[in-house]
Amino acid sequence: MKGGELTICGLAAVRARFARDAASIKRLFFDRETSRKVGAMCKALAESKRVYRCVETAELAKIAGSIHHGGIVAIVAAPALRAPTAAELKAWAARGEAVLLLDRIGNAHNLGALARTAGFFGVNKIVLPDDPAAARPGEAAFRVAEGGLEAVDVFCVPGLAALVRALIAAGYDVAGAAARGGRPEAKGREGRPVALVLGNEEHGLAADVAAACSRLVTIPGSGRVESLNVSVAGAVLMWELFGRR
Amino acid sequence: MKGGELTICGLAAVRARFARDAASIKRLFFDRETSRKVGAMCKALAESKRVYRCVETAELAKIAGSIHHGGIVAIVAAPALRAPTAAELKAWAARGEAVLLLDRIGNAHNLGALARTAGFFGVNKIVLPDDPAAARPGEAAFRVAEGGLEAVDVFCVPGLAALVRALIAAGYDVAGAAARGGRPEAKGREGRPVALVLGNEEHGLAADVAAACSRLVTIPGSGRVESLNVSVAGAVLMWELFGRR
Repeated sequence: MKGGELTICGLAAVRARFARDAASIKRLFFDRETSRKVGAMCKALAESKRVYRCVETAELAKIAGSIHHGGIVAIVAAPALRAPTAAELKAWAARGEAVLLLDRIGNAHNLGALARTAGFFGVNKIVLPDDPAAARPGEAAFRVAEGGLEAVDVFCVPGLAALVRALIAAGYDVAGAAARGGRPEAKGREGRPVALVLGNEEHGLAADVAAACSRLVTIPGSGRVESLNVSVAGAVLMWELFGRR
Repeated sequence: MKGGELTICGLAAVRARFARDAASIKRLFFDRETSRKVGAMCKALAESKRVYRCVETAELAKIAGSIHHGGIVAIVAAPALRAPTAAELKAWAARGEAVLLLDRIGNAHNLGALARTAGFFGVNKIVLPDDPAAARPGEAAFRVAEGGLEAVDVFCVPGLAALVRALIAAGYDVAGAAARGGRPEAKGREGRPVALVLGNEEHGLAADVAAACSRLVTIPGSGRVESLNVSVAGAVLMWELFGRR
C-alpha cells in the first residue's frame, strides 16, 4: 500500500471489488489470457473514462509488485479505516451482527485468510487496533482473501479493550480465544449477539483485552500438536459461534 | 526432497521428529541463536557419531534451500510411503481411528496445514493417492505442519476410490467434502468410525471418489464469499467430525 493507493490482485478479488464499489477502481491491468473474462468491467471503466489495459505478464508483475497477480491487477484508493460510533455498535447489536476483533494479527496472509472465512460465514464486521503490530488490509491480504475483504467492513480503533467493553455495554457476548478457556460450543447468554476476539500469532490476546471479554474459549486438542494456526483456529471458532446456527 | 533425503526446518518440526524417531536424523545444522536450545539433541547425535554443526545464517539458508529455515535444519531419510494393508484397515476400524484422505491436494502448504490440524485433533492417519497432482510430504509441508507430520502416519495408495470402498467394508462411515452435500453436523451411522475425504483445491473430489463415499458433506456459507480455503474447510470438518466429540 503506497501513496494512498492499493493494488488488488486476482480475478475473484477484483470482481468482488467491482461488484461492491466499481467507482473505487482507478486503473485496471490484465494479461491476454484474462482479457476474455473482463469485458463488462472494461466497458464500465471506458464509460467513466478510466484506464484499463492488456499488458505483458512481466509488466503486470511490475504493476502488482508480485508475480502472484493472478492475471489481473486493479489500482484502487486505499481505504481510510475509522472507528465505529456508539450508535453503530447499538445498531449492530439490534441486528444481531457477528463481529470479529483481531488483536494484532501480524501476518497479512492470516488477515486475508480470516477475512475470507469471515465473509464466507457472514461475519460482516472486522475491527483492528491502531497498532503497528497489526497487519492492515494491503496487497497480500486482499490476494489471500479471494474477495473476502469486499464482503466485510473493516474498522480500526485506538484500543481494543475499550471496544470489547463498549460491545458488552451494547449487549454483546464477547468470546476471546485463549490457551485456557471454556469449550467453544458452550452457549453464551441466549439471544445475545456474539463477537469473537482472536489474538496475536505469537503472544495471543493482550492481558487487558482478555480481561475485558465476557468469556474465554479454547479449542480442545489431542495434545500431540501444540497449537492451531490462528486462521484455522479462527475458522473453527467462527463456524462454532456463527456458522453452525 | 532430493536423493532420498528430506530437510526438516524449524525448531518445532525438528523437535517433533527427534521425539518420534531420533534415529532418522542423519545431520543437524543450526544458527548461533538456536544453538542454546538444542543441547540434548546434539548430545544424542554425538553419542551415535552423527554430524551436528552450528553454521552461519547464509550457509543454513543454502542447506535448507530456503531462507525460511527457522534457525535449524535436520537432514533425514525421505519416508517411503506405502499402502495400508486390509488387516490394518480392520485394526483402525476396531480402534475407531479417525482417517483423513486427501484427493490430490496439490499445494504443499495446504498439505502441511492440514497435517498440523489433523495432528492437533488426534487424526493419526493421512492417506494420499499415488498421483503426480498430489503434494507429498516435503520441506514446505514439514515447515508449515509445525510438527504435525510427525504426529500422523502418512500412507499412499494407487487409487483413492478403492480405498474408500475398503474403508467402508472395514466398517467406516466415509464423508466426502463436496460443493453440494448434507450439513456436516448431521450424524453418520452411530458408533461407526469416521473417515473424511478432501478434494483438490480447484477441482474438488474426483467423480469416482465422491461416488464411493458413504455420504457427502458441505459447510453452509452466507453466499457472499464463494468458498473456503481447503485447509480451512478441512479444519472445520475435522473439528465437527472428530474434534467436537
